[in-house]
Amino acid sequence: MTRRLARAGMPAGGGPLTGTIDLRVRYAETDQMGVVYHANYLVWCEVGRTELIRSLGLPYAELERSGGVALAVADAALRYHAPARYDDAIRVVTTVSEVRSRTIAFEYQIIHAASGDRLVSARTTLVCLDRSGRPATLPPALRNALQAPSS
Amino acid sequence: MTRRLARAGMPAGGGPLTGTIDLRVRYAETDQMGVVYHANYLVWCEVGRTELIRSLGLPYAELERSGGVALAVADAALRYHAPARYDDAIRVVTTVSEVRSRTIAFEYQIIHAASGDRLVSARTTLVCLDRSGRPATLPPALRNALQAPSS
Amino acid sequence: MTRRLARAGMPAGGGPLTGTIDLRVRYAETDQMGVVYHANYLVWCEVGRTELIRSLGLPYAELERSGGVALAVADAALRYHAPARYDDAIRVVTTVSEVRSRTIAFEYQIIHAASGDRLVSARTTLVCLDRSGRPATLPPALRNALQAPSS
Amino acid sequence: MTRRLARAGMPAGGGPLTGTIDLRVRYAETDQMGVVYHANYLVWCEVGRTELIRSLGLPYAELERSGGVALAVADAALRYHAPARYDDAIRVVTTVSEVRSRTIAFEYQIIHAASGDRLVSARTTLVCLDRSGRPATLPPALRNALQAPSS
Repeated sequence: MTRRLARAGMPAGGGPLTGTIDLRVRYAETDQMGVVYHANYLVWCEVGRTELIRSLGLPYAELERSGGVALAVADAALRYHAPARYDDAIRVVTTVSEVRSRTIAFEYQIIHAASGDRLVSARTTLVCLDRSGRPATLPPALRNALQAPSS
Repeated sequence: MTRRLARAGMPAGGGPLTGTIDLRVRYAETDQMGVVYHANYLVWCEVGRTELIRSLGLPYAELERSGGVALAVADAALRYHAPARYDDAIRVVTTVSEVRSRTIAFEYQIIHAASGDRLVSARTTLVCLDRSGRPATLPPALRNALQAPSS
Repeated sequence: MTRRLARAGMPAGGGPLTGTIDLRVRYAETDQMGVVYHANYLVWCEVGRTELIRSLGLPYAELERSGGVALAVADAALRYHAPARYDDAIRVVTTVSEVRSRTIAFEYQIIHAASGDRLVSARTTLVCLDRSGRPATLPPALRNALQAPSS
Repeated sequence: MTRRLARAGMPAGGGPLTGTIDLRVRYAETDQMGVVYHANYLVWCEVGRTELIRSLGLPYAELERSGGVALAVADAALRYHAPARYDDAIRVVTTVSEVRSRTIAFEYQIIHAASGDRLVSARTTLVCLDRSGRPATLPPALRNALQAPSS
C-alpha cells in the first residue's frame, strides 16, 4: 500500500489535508455488469479516510479501541463518472473538507491510476459517537491534527 | 419475502409508484461497531428497486438478458438516521421519483419493521446503458409501466 | 422469507434437525463471470443455520446478546456443483450433523428452487466462545434443543 | 501492495510455486463479533492466487479477457485458527499444490504479519471453463508457467 500525505495549499498556513492510497480491484468487487458494484466505492472511501487519519499519527483503530469513540457515517453522496474494472489499479484521494465540534466531512476522488480518469467523486460526513452511541465531541488530539496549519 | 405494490395517490389518476420489500439483517452485514456497515444499505436499495420493477411485470433480470440494456447507478445519496442491527426485520419502501428518457430516479425509506423507525433515507439515479455501455433511452415497456396512471 | 422446520427421520424418535430458508440472489452477490461470487455461499449458509436455530425458539441474536456466547466458524468446506445466477430463487437446507460439548456441525444443501438442482453442498463446524473469545460449552438450552428427539 | 515470488525448493529442479501478498483489514470486513467475517478469507485467497498468477507474467484479467477462459472455484476448505481484526496487516502466502489438465489446486496460509501467527489455512481447487461455462483444458502458457522447474 502506498501512502502519501500532503497539504496542497501553501501561502496562508496550510491548505486542505489530503491523503492518497492505491488499491487494486478484487474479483469479489465486480458484478455481472463486468464493473465494480457501486456500493464498493463506499468501502474504498472508508479505506481512504482510514489512511488519511493514520497519516496524522492517530490510527483510527486506536481511536476506537483506546479513545472510546467511533466515527459513524451520517450521510454520503456519490457521483459515478466511469466504471472501475477488475484488476484496475485505483487511487483514492481523500480530503478533509470540514471539521466541526462533532463531525468531520471528507471528500474523495476515486481515480483510475493508469489513465488518471476520474471514476467516482464522493463526500461523506462522519459523526463522533461515544461508547453508548450518542454524539460526542471529537477527541481534541484528532481535532487538532485535522486542523493544524501545515506551515 | 413479502411484497406490496401500491400507488399512494388517488385523485388525479395515480400517484407515485411504490414497492415494499422486507428483509432480515444478516450477520455478514454487520461490522465491529455492532451495527450494519453503511455501504450495505445501497445493496438493500438495489433489492428494493428490483422488487418494484418486478412488480410491474418486467423483471430486471429479463430487461438485462433479453432487452440488451442495463440500469447503472449514476449517483446516490444516503442519510443515516439510526442504525440497523443484526437480525432486525427491515422494510425497504421504494418510490419512483422521476422518469426521463434515459434515467430513472428512485427514493428509498429504510425502516425498522417492528418499531417503524426510519433508519436510512436514500435516493439514486439510474441511467440506461446499451450493451456497449453507452447511455440509451429506456425500453418503452419499462418507461410506460413506470409512468402509467393507476386509475 | 419462508421457513420450514422438520425432522426427517421417523422411526426411532427423531432424525436430523433440518431447516429450510428461501432467498433471492442479489445483484451485489454476482461477479463478472455472471454468476454468484463463491464466497457468498458461506453467507447463505450463515442465514440457513440462523433460521434453523431460530426455529428452535432460541434466536441466535439472543444467544449472543443475553447468553454471553458466540458461535464462531472453526472450519468450512464447500463443493460447487453449478452456479447460482442473479435473481434466482435459492433454497438453503440446513441440517445439524453433529453436536458435541463445545461444537456444532451443520451441513447445507443449496438448491436452485425452480429446478431443484443442487448448486452447492457445504459443511461448517462452529465452536462456542465465551465473551473473552475462549472455547466454552454450549448453553444447555441450545444443546438440548439441538438434540431433543422429535417424537 | 508488496509482492514476492519464490520457489521454495531448490535441489531437484524447483519446488512449489509460491506468492505472497500483504493487505490490511478493512472495516467493512469485520462483523459484530469484532473480528473479520469468515467468508472474507475466501476473498483474500482470491487476491493471493491472482497475485501469484500475475507474478508468472500471465495476469488473470488477461487470461479471462483474451484467453477466453475463466477459472471457477470447484471446491474450497478453510480452517480458522485465530481471528484477524480491523486494521491488522495480513500476509497471504499462496502455493500451487497440484496442476492437472483442467484444474489447479492452491493452498493458502493467511498470517498475521506482525506476529507471524497463522490465522487461517485454506485450499481451493479451480477448474478451467470456456466461454460457454464448460470445463476446458488449461491454456498451455498457464500450465507451463505453473509447472516450469525453477532451476
